[in-house]
Amino acid sequence: MSILIKNGWIVTQDGKRRIINGDVYIEENLIVDIGKIKVEAEYVIDATNRIVLPGLINTHTHVGMTDMRGLADDVSLDNFLQIMWKEEGERGKEDIYRGAILGIKEMLRTGTTTFVDMYSDEDVIARACKDLGIRGYLGWAVVDEELTTQEGDPLKNAESFIREYRDDDLVTPLIAPHAVYTCSEETLLKSQEIAEKYGTLITMHISETRREVYDHRKKTGMRPVEWLSKIGFLSENLIGVHLVWLTLHEIKLLAERDVKVSHNPTSNMKLGNGGAMPLVEMLDHGLTITLGTDSAVSNNNLDMFEVMKFASLLHKNERWDASVTNAQMIVDFATINAAKALGLNAGSIEEGKLADIIIMNPEPSGIPLEKNRLISHIVYSLNGLNTEYTIVNGKIIVAQGKFLNEKED
Amino acid sequence: MSILIKNGWIVTQDGKRRIINGDVYIEENLIVDIGKIKVEAEYVIDATNRIVLPGLINTHTHVGMTDMRGLADDVSLDNFLQIMWKEEGERGKEDIYRGAILGIKEMLRTGTTTFVDMYSDEDVIARACKDLGIRGYLGWAVVDEELTTQEGDPLKNAESFIREYRDDDLVTPLIAPHAVYTCSEETLLKSQEIAEKYGTLITMHISETRREVYDHRKKTGMRPVEWLSKIGFLSENLIGVHLVWLTLHEIKLLAERDVKVSHNPTSNMKLGNGGAMPLVEMLDHGLTITLGTDSAVSNNNLDMFEVMKFASLLHKNERWDASVTNAQMIVDFATINAAKALGLNAGSIEEGKLADIIIMNPEPSGIPLEKNRLISHIVYSLNGLNTEYTIVNGKIIVAQGKFLNEKED
Repeated sequence: MSILIKNGWIVTQDGKRRIINGDVYIEENLIVDIGKIKVEAEYVIDATNRIVLPGLINTHTHVGMTDMRGLADDVSLDNFLQIMWKEEGERGKEDIYRGAILGIKEMLRTGTTTFVDMYSDEDVIARACKDLGIRGYLGWAVVDEELTTQEGDPLKNAESFIREYRDDDLVTPLIAPHAVYTCSEETLLKSQEIAEKYGTLITMHISETRREVYDHRKKTGMRPVEWLSKIGFLSENLIGVHLVWLTLHEIKLLAERDVKVSHNPTSNMKLGNGGAMPLVEMLDHGLTITLGTDSAVSNNNLDMFEVMKFASLLHKNERWDASVTNAQMIVDFATINAAKALGLNAGSIEEGKLADIIIMNPEPSGIPLEKNRLISHIVYSLNGLNTEYTIVNGKIIVAQGKFLNEKED
Repeated sequence: MSILIKNGWIVTQDGKRRIINGDVYIEENLIVDIGKIKVEAEYVIDATNRIVLPGLINTHTHVGMTDMRGLADDVSLDNFLQIMWKEEGERGKEDIYRGAILGIKEMLRTGTTTFVDMYSDEDVIARACKDLGIRGYLGWAVVDEELTTQEGDPLKNAESFIREYRDDDLVTPLIAPHAVYTCSEETLLKSQEIAEKYGTLITMHISETRREVYDHRKKTGMRPVEWLSKIGFLSENLIGVHLVWLTLHEIKLLAERDVKVSHNPTSNMKLGNGGAMPLVEMLDHGLTITLGTDSAVSNNNLDMFEVMKFASLLHKNERWDASVTNAQMIVDFATINAAKALGLNAGSIEEGKLADIIIMNPEPSGIPLEKNRLISHIVYSLNGLNTEYTIVNGKIIVAQGKFLNEKED
């Protein structure tokens, strides 16, 4: 298929962060041309007074839990996990599929074209991704065998999932050891071995709460990141999630190994984890920061536009200084940085990049629409429901706010 | 006109906080009946799988500035005010009207039916309110005469505005001394005299930043609230805005006089004011808490759903405790508490109340839609663009997300 997006404000997110008023031409799953374009296309979208953006990339969620939103609010992480584990014990694959469909539709409708997931039963999530047409980086969750509720050995399950999907177009498999409090050194190193064998990424919750840090230090004498460094687990292929409670020494350890960071401010705040990820110091040390919603149970939506605003405002408030974040930095987190973290040829609108693009109608909160205010509007004014079109891998999934292959209500 | 809202999930916000699956019947500008209703109505709205809520009440904004959003991001309040005062110096009444139209349309589209404004030229804002049909509590801004950019004496301007609008249906005038750093004791007491003479409310920025507190203490030997108490300015008719930097002693002074509180978490966070309003202690002392967006320049939208989420999450994060806020408390802030603060016969869906009602489509982030999750969805999942219908004073202003009296794009 070919698509011509006409006359939009194109936020390229290229090296120069250019904003161009013009057209984008897509053939098959690639961006072929940008500028003032004269060409016939099978599908033409009028983007006049619209913002054309790279599709947002959500680097952490548990999409199979989406239908459980609203069941564990206003309680601490400990109580939250108790409620979740009880609920999850009663769920089967069809529940997870239903949750995934809800969550993936929400993401597509609100401007997310790629997400990173962590869960068991990622085969079910993979099916939902392919049914709806979103790009999924699906991390099969691994915990110590005595803790698991999975049938069989989680490591073997993860490996067979990776084998099954490693050549897929939309689904990229990875391995997701859960956390230091659920994974032994042996489990972590075996996960790493599998990742290296198949050349996949690894993602893991790290230092989300003070409790986690306190307990791990009591057990090992080391803080989680120190310990992960010692056992040789830190690498450029690791996407560490949360990373709220870090020392400067730990930030240096992460930076030395180029560990990628998934920052989940809304979830952290909602769970009252306290403090805030030390963003300023992490940026000073050159870490690649990306953003995640976390699950709909601890957020309670999957709207990356809302996460962008929370990310920017949390740190301004925490540092008593409005200048520590800025809108361009935050848009980078959600697009080009996340693409870099995933090794994905997307996250910017440039010739030769994958055609993962969203088109935002700025009404009513993003007007007046002027070139010098676009980046501000994206972070501070819009939300996901401003998304009018979502294009993934060159396919139009959402058009005029509705799923293209779905009947009107 | 008569309106029948059929078969919705009605979040009554009555004394028992009942949630009813049923109908709401409106005649003229009043709610006449709630339940399973058999009646003919001129306008019938099918609210199946929708949430029916009292219209939200935004207790602080400067709506005439809406078109300036995006001009002063990522800078401290001092720099912010410098930029704003420079921009505002070049604006005329038509600019303010245009800003107000933008902002009021945004509020109506995102579920706000009543707002409290603070600005000069409130006569222009009043015109915009009446043109669009929103309920406006319009506070004519007062500063010391040597600081004003208004033509004539701000106090006299305020008084003549109050005289002009005191019997209006939609517009309720009030007086709005700006802050302790722009208003002398004399200006404040004269403002109070005018308020008492006409029986209006007063609204004022109080203790927004540490700088304000520091400077005022240096000048007077007292913190702002202590000083306002000493000069006899605190009263149940005062809506204090921000109130971020308070001592426990000051909270007691506010509570003794039943001063009403407008909490503006998004603006406070975006400006990096630091800390957080001491919500927990204020609730302990029985203060009436309400919510405001502040202007679109320091937010940068006027979406009260977003403000509800920021309000809840800010305090969880600040206290390292997810249980210090809960969704019902936050919905109360934005509805019934605000109505109480304004002396407005609204904020809940009950027989005899004003027909200020919104209807929310929960798709895609507020599903599954179940009775026990509705309040959570309102605060944590939805945003203003989920608003499908906005009814103010018995008139349908927004229907199916579009302004009823406006042509399709």
